[in-house]
Amino acid sequence: MATMRYQFATLMTDFGTRDPYVAQMKGVLLTVCPRAQIIDISHEVAPQSVLEGAFILSQAAPMFPPGTVHVAVVDPGVGGDRRILAARIDGRTFLAPDNGLLSLVIARGPLEELVAVRAGEFLPPAASTTFHGRDVFAPLAGQVLNGLDIARLGPQPQTYKHLDIAAPRVEADEMVGQVIYIDRFGNLVSNIPGQEVLGHAQAEGLRVSLAGQEVGGLQGAYCFTEPGHSLAVINSMGLLEIAVNGGSAKDTFHCTLGAEVRVKR
Amino acid sequence: MATMRYQFATLMTDFGTRDPYVAQMKGVLLTVCPRAQIIDISHEVAPQSVLEGAFILSQAAPMFPPGTVHVAVVDPGVGGDRRILAARIDGRTFLAPDNGLLSLVIARGPLEELVAVRAGEFLPPAASTTFHGRDVFAPLAGQVLNGLDIARLGPQPQTYKHLDIAAPRVEADEMVGQVIYIDRFGNLVSNIPGQEVLGHAQAEGLRVSLAGQEVGGLQGAYCFTEPGHSLAVINSMGLLEIAVNGGSAKDTFHCTLGAEVRVKR
Amino acid sequence: MATMRYQFATLMTDFGTRDPYVAQMKGVLLTVCPRAQIIDISHEVAPQSVLEGAFILSQAAPMFPPGTVHVAVVDPGVGGDRRILAARIDGRTFLAPDNGLLSLVIARGPLEELVAVRAGEFLPPAASTTFHGRDVFAPLAGQVLNGLDIARLGPQPQTYKHLDIAAPRVEADEMVGQVIYIDRFGNLVSNIPGQEVLGHAQAEGLRVSLAGQEVGGLQGAYCFTEPGHSLAVINSMGLLEIAVNGGSAKDTFHCTLGAEVRVKR
Repeated sequence: MATMRYQFATLMTDFGTRDPYVAQMKGVLLTVCPRAQIIDISHEVAPQSVLEGAFILSQAAPMFPPGTVHVAVVDPGVGGDRRILAARIDGRTFLAPDNGLLSLVIARGPLEELVAVRAGEFLPPAASTTFHGRDVFAPLAGQVLNGLDIARLGPQPQTYKHLDIAAPRVEADEMVGQVIYIDRFGNLVSNIPGQEVLGHAQAEGLRVSLAGQEVGGLQGAYCFTEPGHSLAVINSMGLLEIAVNGGSAKDTFHCTLGAEVRVKR
Repeated sequence: MATMRYQFATLMTDFGTRDPYVAQMKGVLLTVCPRAQIIDISHEVAPQSVLEGAFILSQAAPMFPPGTVHVAVVDPGVGGDRRILAARIDGRTFLAPDNGLLSLVIARGPLEELVAVRAGEFLPPAASTTFHGRDVFAPLAGQVLNGLDIARLGPQPQTYKHLDIAAPRVEADEMVGQVIYIDRFGNLVSNIPGQEVLGHAQAEGLRVSLAGQEVGGLQGAYCFTEPGHSLAVINSMGLLEIAVNGGSAKDTFHCTLGAEVRVKR
Repeated sequence: MATMRYQFATLMTDFGTRDPYVAQMKGVLLTVCPRAQIIDISHEVAPQSVLEGAFILSQAAPMFPPGTVHVAVVDPGVGGDRRILAARIDGRTFLAPDNGLLSLVIARGPLEELVAVRAGEFLPPAASTTFHGRDVFAPLAGQVLNGLDIARLGPQPQTYKHLDIAAPRVEADEMVGQVIYIDRFGNLVSNIPGQEVLGHAQAEGLRVSLAGQEVGGLQGAYCFTEPGHSLAVINSMGLLEIAVNGGSAKDTFHCTLGAEVRVKR
């Protein structure tokens, strides 16, 4: 009985929060599983941006208790022949279209189970062709929260969609990566793992540049640089990040996604 | 006991989510009814846009479990002599100002009960004149969740405010409607019911135009057209919608609310 | 047992709702205290704007039931030597950085307990230096919700950070204040207390000006002025506010924070 009270479902979509879509998903899910506790991961993923959604999901989902059901819907192929995946990864369950949205959580792993949902059996015949978030994912999530084993949803797929994720490389005495995410503060998150940067004995002697511009040295926190000055830091994701203390590195450097980041010893 | 645990209240307002207003409503509601589960429908209704709010509410509210209490506050007449309505519609309870905000949910029906709240009895004397969401609607919702029968809130009104909703018309061999809602994706939702469009034997031969521009044929889903191309589709609301696969029809056609939509056989 | 079910935590941050940060905090908090009910106060505080956060928090927090744990993270000094405060104010518990964010709730009072969290004991060694919301505040909030007494978190501090809050002054027969908050509707909230304005016998004869422009008289509610016309009103915070009925006073008067407000008898 006690465990029944804590049934967490999260939602991550590109629907925004103005339109009725997210609320419709919640209403349907709660109708199927009234004891669900629904938490929003994000609904501000850029429209149809599977990669951005994959990144946000991979950062947030592992923080939730084991047993959480994560529903991720960034789904430009809705109504077509793209499949729906159900996965159990590190004790959490995921439902998402098979378009790469799960790539980064699967990469973190461990992947414990993966099935392609049998459409004929679990997609309601009255489902719309434009909104499977409401008509397929939400009721499915409710059933999983009610105890339905995802192993029963369909067979293990032979393959599934991966995203091409940029990886950093080593060039002579430099690590070369790129900006893969920009947050609300204008912090520029790179794909360079912090532990590789910190592995060097004299981390504080490192020089970091962004698209050819020096950004200052590696600091222990934002506030160890003068206000308005730029710095590099190992952020809460464990990644090298370029920031401006009390300001926006995005605005300071007029930076966009994909900009080159170099770390020189 | 079991049913007591699932007491759903939803909020829909034009307050946005930056200001303290929505949280104030939630705090007051939870103080009156601590077991309430509060779900946001939307707080991004355009300021004072009763029609937009009515549309969003009518799409989202019916998806919630019977017994849900829906609180809708888009209330430009707050503090004046506009009345407050309480309604039971299809097993759900609604609280809203009498300004048309309930028009569309009442039109869906069935309307099972409607009362005009007796101000003298249920409006706290210390209520502000600018924020009845917090001072009137939230405590009232909490009491209704606690079991207060809305029949006791006041008498049935002789009349109540309706909104003028545009209806599509038939002209020779064309159906003529208009864009009534534009969502985050730039999808253009018309007031033309899908079943009337689909009623024609050769639906795929239909031609759809927007403000005089051809938008392509009726498709089964967004992805059945080339990326970047426009299409018409029957959307998840059951309405004819004009969209661009992977893009924004709003931007592509520079479309605003009210633009004419024509369907030709 | 009954009371254990209603464990309210609120979050207020400047993180926005697109990035994974807020969800990460919620995931961590729910892992520590699965029965927590988490309510968002706001995540749209302007980045690093401690004063704006302090204002929003002081308006929203007192509306929640006693026992609520309010977590407020607008934290430009994260990772540096700024302390973390835990406070009990009027039966609610607050966790926030010691940067003035609690100034206004403390001013409302009564302040029943205040401690500076002992970093060595309660800050996990693996905490990031950039995101204490997730690594420090969220687990701490979960423990407090689980029953940890804040008196055990650390000693009472000798002093703590206050914000300089502008106070209105009296000049001859005028009260002179300023605009301290602008909401989504473009309403201009001043720091002039309503009871001082209303204390004058002939409140309706008062003249209010904004940065030298007449804004019309004091009204009982927005709708008592013609649509599009400006007015002054005592708002739901008990403060003198300048508004435009059905419009935006911010846009009408091109007003920014700090603009002078004068009330003349």
